[in-house]
Amino acid sequence: MSYSIREGEKKDMQAVLELINELALFEKLPNEVEISIQDLLRDGFSDKPKFKTFVAEEDAVIIGVALFYERYSTWKGRIFHLEDLIVRKDKRGLGAGFSLYQAVLKFAHDTGAKRVSWDVLDWNKDAINFYKNTGATILEDWQVVHMTRENLENFIENTKG
Amino acid sequence: MSYSIREGEKKDMQAVLELINELALFEKLPNEVEISIQDLLRDGFSDKPKFKTFVAEEDAVIIGVALFYERYSTWKGRIFHLEDLIVRKDKRGLGAGFSLYQAVLKFAHDTGAKRVSWDVLDWNKDAINFYKNTGATILEDWQVVHMTRENLENFIENTKG
Repeated sequence: MSYSIREGEKKDMQAVLELINELALFEKLPNEVEISIQDLLRDGFSDKPKFKTFVAEEDAVIIGVALFYERYSTWKGRIFHLEDLIVRKDKRGLGAGFSLYQAVLKFAHDTGAKRVSWDVLDWNKDAINFYKNTGATILEDWQVVHMTRENLENFIENTKG
Repeated sequence: MSYSIREGEKKDMQAVLELINELALFEKLPNEVEISIQDLLRDGFSDKPKFKTFVAEEDAVIIGVALFYERYSTWKGRIFHLEDLIVRKDKRGLGAGFSLYQAVLKFAHDTGAKRVSWDVLDWNKDAINFYKNTGATILEDWQVVHMTRENLENFIENTKG
């Protein structure tokens, strides 16, 4: 294969941000990305990093990223969450996505994680089949709930006592 | 009201574990709870706590808990995740659930979180309506994916290179 997988470093964050924007476009929500390169550098490389990345690199160019972090299950304990797995559109089919996925799962396995979780769009059938084929389970009866910053501010304002 | 809300401490973890077990029973998966009191004490009260709790206390007895932790959105940045919100069955209807929910949202708000997320069972209509009424959004097109520790071990074994 023509690419290699390694842990992401500060110098990769500009390319990571471009991949994040590319994924938002694919998911039809390009205006939702509010994060900046400064946020990624501060949050990923402080004393208590808020996430970790693996990158796929081809000829010194970043063509893919997996971004993940620890979560906590009250049933299982320490688990990992795969937030994003992105490969540049013109670099798909080389296996970089699988290699990144494998790197995250191996890291989770080797550090004793009790589970790895992530979310998938229900119309992304290729992704769902890929995940199922590797032994993951789609939880049919759970739904994801979000309260945005704006709605959080409204809630706080409306329930002031 | 007859209860008060405060941050959870080490001394509360036995009661928290009982509430976790009660919730697993309600969710019809009582055998899924593998976590121990030692896990909760180590993971919640180390140098880098993996979660934070608020508890509802009535006459020195813990009647409810909200357990949450930080996550990272590649679109928004630092967010919080509400893992569990549990009130003892015989203490529902007093408002303790709402007070715990409010405490978590206020903490998230005051510490600058860009979003709060959680998961809900699709048949738990009371919970869904409650969340919607407070301004939260149910993401209809996302699904939760899990790879259990067992399947993680199988995946690593099967993809050894």
